[in-house]
Amino acid sequence: MSNTNRRFLLRERPTGRIEPSTFELSEEPVPEIGDGEALLRMEYISLDPTNRMWINETPTYLPPVAIGEVMRAVGIGRVDASRQEGYPEGALVQGLLGWQEYAVVSDAMPGFVMPEAEGIPVSTYLGVLGQNGLTAYVGMHDIGAPKEGETVVVSAAAGAVGSVAAQIAKIMGARVVGIAGGPEKCAWLTGELGLDAAVDYKAPDFRAQLAAATPDGIDVDFENVGGEIMDAVFARLNVHSRVALCGLISGYNAEEPPPGPRAFGNLLIQRTKLQGYIVLDHFHRIGEVSEILAGWMAEGRLHNRETVVEGFEQLPTAINMLFDGANTGKLVVRL
Amino acid sequence: MSNTNRRFLLRERPTGRIEPSTFELSEEPVPEIGDGEALLRMEYISLDPTNRMWINETPTYLPPVAIGEVMRAVGIGRVDASRQEGYPEGALVQGLLGWQEYAVVSDAMPGFVMPEAEGIPVSTYLGVLGQNGLTAYVGMHDIGAPKEGETVVVSAAAGAVGSVAAQIAKIMGARVVGIAGGPEKCAWLTGELGLDAAVDYKAPDFRAQLAAATPDGIDVDFENVGGEIMDAVFARLNVHSRVALCGLISGYNAEEPPPGPRAFGNLLIQRTKLQGYIVLDHFHRIGEVSEILAGWMAEGRLHNRETVVEGFEQLPTAINMLFDGANTGKLVVRL
Repeated sequence: MSNTNRRFLLRERPTGRIEPSTFELSEEPVPEIGDGEALLRMEYISLDPTNRMWINETPTYLPPVAIGEVMRAVGIGRVDASRQEGYPEGALVQGLLGWQEYAVVSDAMPGFVMPEAEGIPVSTYLGVLGQNGLTAYVGMHDIGAPKEGETVVVSAAAGAVGSVAAQIAKIMGARVVGIAGGPEKCAWLTGELGLDAAVDYKAPDFRAQLAAATPDGIDVDFENVGGEIMDAVFARLNVHSRVALCGLISGYNAEEPPPGPRAFGNLLIQRTKLQGYIVLDHFHRIGEVSEILAGWMAEGRLHNRETVVEGFEQLPTAINMLFDGANTGKLVVRL
Repeated sequence: MSNTNRRFLLRERPTGRIEPSTFELSEEPVPEIGDGEALLRMEYISLDPTNRMWINETPTYLPPVAIGEVMRAVGIGRVDASRQEGYPEGALVQGLLGWQEYAVVSDAMPGFVMPEAEGIPVSTYLGVLGQNGLTAYVGMHDIGAPKEGETVVVSAAAGAVGSVAAQIAKIMGARVVGIAGGPEKCAWLTGELGLDAAVDYKAPDFRAQLAAATPDGIDVDFENVGGEIMDAVFARLNVHSRVALCGLISGYNAEEPPPGPRAFGNLLIQRTKLQGYIVLDHFHRIGEVSEILAGWMAEGRLHNRETVVEGFEQLPTAINMLFDGANTGKLVVRL
C-alpha cells in the first residue's frame, strides 16, 4: 500500500471538449479514517457521458463539481481499513467515489456493499448489472414499453446503456434497429447482439439507411444522442410512439445548446409520449432489476462487452473516448 | 332558401400564409339528397389553427384536403331536409362539414345531433362545450394534471383552447400564468379569467417577464405555440414537469419546419413528461367532459368569450386572424 493518494481535481471548466488543462493531478497522503468511516482502495472507475455535464457551470440534476474538487464518478473500491459497521474489510463497495486512488465512505458520503459472485467480473457491476443496466431497463421496459412486433430504434446502441436497452427490446419481442458509428460496431449489433438491423450514423446516406431499416416507421425511440440522429428518428415516429429520453451525448461538448429537433412537431402529430429520466431517481430498484438482467445473462440472452482502459492516469483522456465513439459497450478504467 | 350552395374549394396549397389565391369560391346547386342522407343549412363554421395543417401537402393526423375539394372545417348546421333517421328536420348537427353553405350528412359522412339548451348560444358547442373545451380538458386535467399550488403556464392563453385550459388549471388549484399578445388580452386573463399573472410575448423583455411571473419555475406547460415562446418555457421547467403538447401554431405558416427548442435538453435534466395529443382521439369523451365544463360555466367559474365574424364570404380572410392574434377566445364565422 502506497502512502500517496493520487486524485484528479477539476482545474477549469471546459468550454467544449475535455482538454489536458481541465483536470490537475494532485498527490496527497492517503486519508486517515476516523470513527464511522471506511477507507476504500479503488479498483474500477466508471466513465459515463453524463460525467461531462457535471463539470459545466450550470447545475443539472446534480450540483456542478466545484473547481478544485475531485472529479465525480461512480466507482468500485475494496475496503482497506474500516471504523464503520457495514463496511467490513475486504468488501467491495460502489458509490460516487470520484477520480482518486483512495476514497472514504461514511454515513454522510455512503456507498453500498456489492455481492461478489463467481464468474461475474467486478466491473460488470458498474455496467450491465449496475447503473447502466438499470438505466437501460427503466427506459426500455418501463417507458418505451415496446409491444411484440413494434419497431424500436436505439441510438448509441453499441454503448454501455444502448447495447443493454437494445437487447431488452429484443427480449420483449420487438423488431430492433441499432444506430452506431462504423461497420465494426454495426456488425456487433446484428451479430452477437442479434438486432434486426444496424444503421451507421457516419454513413453519408444515414437517413436513407434508417428509412430502409424501419419500413413500418418507429414505435419506440430509446434516445441517447440528440442532434441530427434524433431528428432523423423523430421524423419517422409512428402514431402513439414513445421516446425514452435517456441522454443527449451529441451536445454535451457543445459550447451552446445545439439546435432542437426540426421534427419536433411530429411529437404532436403522432401523439408521442416523451419521458426524460435520470437513473438516480430509480436506484431503489437496482436489486430487483440486476437480478432480472443477471438471469438473462445466465441464459445467454443478454451479452455484455467492456472496453477496459488500464491505469488511473488514463482517466482524463479515456473520458473523451465516449465522445469519439472509441469504446464498445461499457467503458471503465481499471486501477 | 336559396338554390345555390356557395363553397370554398382549395385551389392551391399555400407555401406560407393563406392568400386570396388559396381558395376559390364555387357556386353549385344545393345538393339533392338521396335515401340515408340529410341536408344541413350551415349556421356556424369553426376556425381553428389546425385547419392550416390540413391544407399542406404532407399528411398529418388527417389526410390533406385535396386540391378542388371543399375546405375541411368543423361546423354546425340545421337539418333542412332529411331522408335519414337520426337527423330530424330542424335538429342541429355538428360535424366536419366544411366551408360551404349546405352540407350533406349520411352514415358515410356522419355528424352528431346536438342538444339545444336555453341560454347557451349554439356557437358554444364549437368552442368551450365542443372540441376546444375537450382539447383543453384532456390536456390540462389528464396530461398536465397540476397539483394544488403548482405553477402552470398556458401559451396562446387568450385563444379558444388556452383560455379554457388556463381556467381549468385555476379550478384545479394551480398558480396559473397565461401568455398572450398585447395588453388587452393580458388584462382579460388576469381580470375576468382570474389568472395569477399574464405575460405579453410581444414585449421586448418577454423572457424576463416570464421569469418574474414564475419565480418557482414551471411545473406544467400547456403548449399551443412552439418556437421562441415554448423555448422560454422549456428553459424554466421544474423537475418532474409535464408538457401537454396541444399545438405549435407559430410554425403552421412556415415554409420550413421552425427550429426545435434550444432548451430541449431540459426535458432530460428535469425528467419531463411530454405528451403530444390530438383531440380526435378523445371524442368519445365529449359528452362527459362537456357536462363538467357546462357545470363550471353555470357556477360562474368558467368564462367564455367568442369572436364572431359575420358572413360566409369572410372565411378565407378570417382564418388568418388566428395567426395574427386578432381573435380573443373562440373564432367562429356565422353564416
